[in-house]
Amino acid sequence: MFIPKLYKSEDLNLMKDIIRENAFALLISSEEKIRATHSMMILNEEDRENIYIETHVSKANPQAKILKNGSEVLCDFLGAHTYISSSWYDHINVSTWNYEAVQIYGKVELMDHEELYLHLDKLTTQYETSQRCPLMLKDMGNAFVEREMHGAFGMKIIPTEIFIQQKLSQNRKENDFRNIIANLEGGDENAKQIAGKMKLLQK
Amino acid sequence: MFIPKLYKSEDLNLMKDIIRENAFALLISSEEKIRATHSMMILNEEDRENIYIETHVSKANPQAKILKNGSEVLCDFLGAHTYISSSWYDHINVSTWNYEAVQIYGKVELMDHEELYLHLDKLTTQYETSQRCPLMLKDMGNAFVEREMHGAFGMKIIPTEIFIQQKLSQNRKENDFRNIIANLEGGDENAKQIAGKMKLLQK
Repeated sequence: MFIPKLYKSEDLNLMKDIIRENAFALLISSEEKIRATHSMMILNEEDRENIYIETHVSKANPQAKILKNGSEVLCDFLGAHTYISSSWYDHINVSTWNYEAVQIYGKVELMDHEELYLHLDKLTTQYETSQRCPLMLKDMGNAFVEREMHGAFGMKIIPTEIFIQQKLSQNRKENDFRNIIANLEGGDENAKQIAGKMKLLQK
Repeated sequence: MFIPKLYKSEDLNLMKDIIRENAFALLISSEEKIRATHSMMILNEEDRENIYIETHVSKANPQAKILKNGSEVLCDFLGAHTYISSSWYDHINVSTWNYEAVQIYGKVELMDHEELYLHLDKLTTQYETSQRCPLMLKDMGNAFVEREMHGAFGMKIIPTEIFIQQKLSQNRKENDFRNIIANLEGGDENAKQIAGKMKLLQK
C-alpha cells in the first residue's frame, strides 16, 4: 500500500481499531498464483511485544493447500471510506476518496490443535457475547467441535511489516476541511464515520 | 477465492451490481512482492463482448512502477457482509459470515493519454452527477487536467477469470433461513443488506 507521508500513521491503537472494526479482511498470498480469501481475523495482543494475526480458512480452500510455515502473506483491512467531491472545495481540484486501511505483511505459522481450539473459542466469544442467547464453543459438544476443527485450517500471521493509512484530507485548508466534514455528515454511514474521524484531527 | 458450489454465481448482473456498489476495490499484484492498492474501479461494458475493468493509481505508487502491459493482477470487490450467529439456528452449529464478493483475475493493458482522459471523465461523471454543484472534468481547465493526468497511472484490466461469490445461507433449512433474516433485519446497514439479498433468494 502506497502511503504518502501526510497520510502515514504510526498509531498502533488506530491499527487495532481498524482491525477490530473490519475483521472480515483479506488474506492474500502469491505462491503459484495470487490468491485471496475473505476471512475473519483477530489481532492477538496477549503478548504485547509480539502481536500477531490469527485466522482460519476452510481446508477445502486451495489456498490452504499452498500455505505452509514461513509462507509470506499480506492481510488487508479496509476501514471506513468515502468519496470526496471536487465540488466541496473553494477552488478547482480533483475528486478523491478518503479512507483508513491497515496492511500487514507477515509469515504464516500453522496452528496446532490446541491453538486452533483457542482461536475458535476466542472468535466465538468475541461475536457471541452480545447475542441474545450466546452459543459458546464449550456448549457445542466435543464431538461436534472436533469435526468442525477437522475442516479448518488455522494459522498465525507473524508481522514483518505494518502499514497504517489514514487519508483524511490532511492536505486541505481549514475552510475546505470544514466544508468536507459538513458534506460528509449528510451522507451515508461510511461518510459519517469519515466525518467523525476528520473531526478528531481538528482537536 | 474459494467458492463452494452452492455459493458460486454465474450471474453477470449480480457481478455488475457488486462492482458498482463496491467500486473502491483492491488491486493486487505479485511481481517482486505482493502489493495491493485500494483504488476506484469502473467496469467498462460499452463493448458487451469484451468487458474490462478501468482504474488508475498514483504514478508515485511503487505498484505503478512494477505494472506493465501483460502483468497479471487480481481485483477484489467485497460486497455486503455480516456475521451469522450460531445461536440463530434451531440446532447446534458454528457461526459464519455471509457475504457477496467478486474477484477478477486479469491482464494489465496500460492506457494511453486519450484513454486516461476518458476514464477520468467517466469516473468524474459517475460520482459528480448527483452532487449539488457538480464539477466535471471539462470545467477544470485544460492545464489543470493535464497536470493531474501527468501524475496518474491508468490501466485497463482485461479479465482472464471471473469469480462471483454469493454466500447467503443457501445450505439452511427454511426455518433457520427465515430466522437468520429476522435477526439480520434488526442489525446494522450491512446486516440489513444481506437480509434483503436473502429475501430475494426466497422468491
